[in-house]
Amino acid sequence: MICRHEVVGEVVEVGPEVSKFRAGDVVGVGVIVGCCRDCRPCKANVEQYCNKKIWSYNDVYTDGKPTQGGFASAMVVDQKFVVKIPAGLAPEQAAPLLCAGVTVYSPLKHFGLMTPGLRGGILGLGGVGHMGVKVAKSMGHHVTVISSSNKKRAEAMDDLGADAYLVSSDADQMAAAADSLDYIIDTVPVKHPLEPYLALLKMDGKLVLMGVIAEPLSFVSPMVMLGRKTITGSFIGSMDETEEVLQFCVDKGLTSQIEVVKMDYVNQAFERLERNDVRYRFVVDVGGSNIEDAA
Amino acid sequence: MICRHEVVGEVVEVGPEVSKFRAGDVVGVGVIVGCCRDCRPCKANVEQYCNKKIWSYNDVYTDGKPTQGGFASAMVVDQKFVVKIPAGLAPEQAAPLLCAGVTVYSPLKHFGLMTPGLRGGILGLGGVGHMGVKVAKSMGHHVTVISSSNKKRAEAMDDLGADAYLVSSDADQMAAAADSLDYIIDTVPVKHPLEPYLALLKMDGKLVLMGVIAEPLSFVSPMVMLGRKTITGSFIGSMDETEEVLQFCVDKGLTSQIEVVKMDYVNQAFERLERNDVRYRFVVDVGGSNIEDAA
Repeated sequence: MICRHEVVGEVVEVGPEVSKFRAGDVVGVGVIVGCCRDCRPCKANVEQYCNKKIWSYNDVYTDGKPTQGGFASAMVVDQKFVVKIPAGLAPEQAAPLLCAGVTVYSPLKHFGLMTPGLRGGILGLGGVGHMGVKVAKSMGHHVTVISSSNKKRAEAMDDLGADAYLVSSDADQMAAAADSLDYIIDTVPVKHPLEPYLALLKMDGKLVLMGVIAEPLSFVSPMVMLGRKTITGSFIGSMDETEEVLQFCVDKGLTSQIEVVKMDYVNQAFERLERNDVRYRFVVDVGGSNIEDAA
Repeated sequence: MICRHEVVGEVVEVGPEVSKFRAGDVVGVGVIVGCCRDCRPCKANVEQYCNKKIWSYNDVYTDGKPTQGGFASAMVVDQKFVVKIPAGLAPEQAAPLLCAGVTVYSPLKHFGLMTPGLRGGILGLGGVGHMGVKVAKSMGHHVTVISSSNKKRAEAMDDLGADAYLVSSDADQMAAAADSLDYIIDTVPVKHPLEPYLALLKMDGKLVLMGVIAEPLSFVSPMVMLGRKTITGSFIGSMDETEEVLQFCVDKGLTSQIEVVKMDYVNQAFERLERNDVRYRFVVDVGGSNIEDAA
C-alpha cells in the first residue's frame, strides 16, 4: 500500500460524463473519494460527515478494490471529489490546503468565526496549527499561539506572524489571559485537560477539537454553563469548503510552509515525521521523481 | 435566612426613578437582583453571565446587607431585575417560569433551536425537565424524554405530552435512537456519561448541560468531531428572555405543574423535596399565609 492524501496533479483523461474538468487542468484530491450521496450530511453537501465515506487511501472503493492514495503515479477519482487548483496557486502550495487548510477553515466558517477582529487561540503548532495561525491571521483575527513551553515562541511570532504566545504551563500567564478569546482551535492529538483552555474563552467562546483522541477528555459542567461556552469539534471540510479555502488563500496571498522532497527521500521524510522534524508539511513531488530509483 | 427564588408579588411602592412599574402591578423576580452593568455580558443584556451578579437570596447586596429572597413579606428590588407578569398568567403559574421556564427557553432560543419540527430530547424529568418538555412541545418539537428507567413513562407521555420515551439503560432502545435528535437538554444534576447521549444526536446536534456538577464529565473527541456535535451549557436566562418566556407561555397556553402550599407547610415541603416527592414545583403562597402561625 502506498498512501497519503493532499494530492495535486494534472488531469490526463476524463470520462464521458465529466463536466467539471478537462485534460490539462491542475486539480486536487483530499482525504475522501466517495460518499453515499443519500444521507443527511451528503444532502447538505458536507460529505465528510457521511458514515459511508470512502478514504482516499487504505480503504475499499465501490468496485471492491483498495484505494491507493496519492503516491501512485495516477489515480481515478469521481469528479465530485476533485477540486480545481485556482490560477495563482502553485501545486505544491495547494497540497497542504486540501487537508490542513480546509480543516481549520471549515469550523471557522461554520461556527460564524470569520469576522475580522475576533481573538483566536491556536493550541498546538503542528501541520494543522501552523495553518490555523495563517488562516486566522488572514481573516483579520488577533491570534494567540498556546503551547506547553517557550520552544516555539520565535517560530510562532516571527515566522508565522502570531500576535501573542501563551505558555500553558505558566499559571500566571494563563490567569492573565482568562476570558479573552472568542475561540480556540485545539490541535493537540493526545489526552489533555480542557479546563485551562475553557477558562481562556470569553462568554459564548468555542473550543474546537481537531485531535482524534481515544482517551476521554473531561471538564466540569459549570465551566461551560457559566459563560455558555461550547466544546465542539470539526473534521476536515466539505468539497465546497475546499474550493473556498483554495480561493481564500489566493485572495489573501496565504502560503503554507512546506518542504518539497522527491520520492527517494520518502523514507527519510517518514523518519523525520516521527521526530516531529518538519516545518510543517512535506510535499512529495511524485511527478518529478524517478519512481524506479525510489523503488 | 429565609430564601428561595422565583418570586411573584404585587408592587406596593416605587421609587422616583422607576419608570417600568407602578403600585398594583403584579411582578416577578428571578434568581438575580444585581449585576455590574459594565462587563461584556451586562452590555449584551445577558446579565446572568456577569461575574459580579448578585443572587436574590443568601448573597450580599450593594448596600452590604444580605439578600433575603422571596419568602420575605416584602422585598426591595431594582426595576432592571423585575418583570411584569403579563395579563392572562396566574401569579402561581408565573413563579416556576421565572427560573425553570427561562432556563430551558434561553438555550433553545440562543442556539437557534426554536424552529418547529425539530426533534429534542429532555434528559431527566424534574422541575426543569418537566418545563423543558412543555416549552419544547409548545415550540412544535417532537420531544423524547430520556430517563434511566420506565418509572416516569406514564408521567412523561400522558401528563406532559411527550412524543417518545427512551430508557437510557436499554442498549437496544438507545442504539435504535442513534443519530435522531437535534438537541438534548440535559438536566441531570450528578455525574453521568455523555457519550450515550452524544450518540443520540444528529450531525450538528447540541447537548445542553443544565446541571451544575462538581465531578468531571468526559467524552472522547471523535464523538463530537465526527458529526460536528456540540457540548454546551446554559445558565438561567436574561431578564429580556424572562419577559419573553412569560409571554410565550401566555400565547401558547402553557401551564406548569405545581402544588401551591402555605407557609405553614414549608417544612413538610422541604422534606418532600428531599425525597423528590413533588410534581414539579412547590409554590409557596406567602401573601395568603398567616406568617405568625408559621413562625
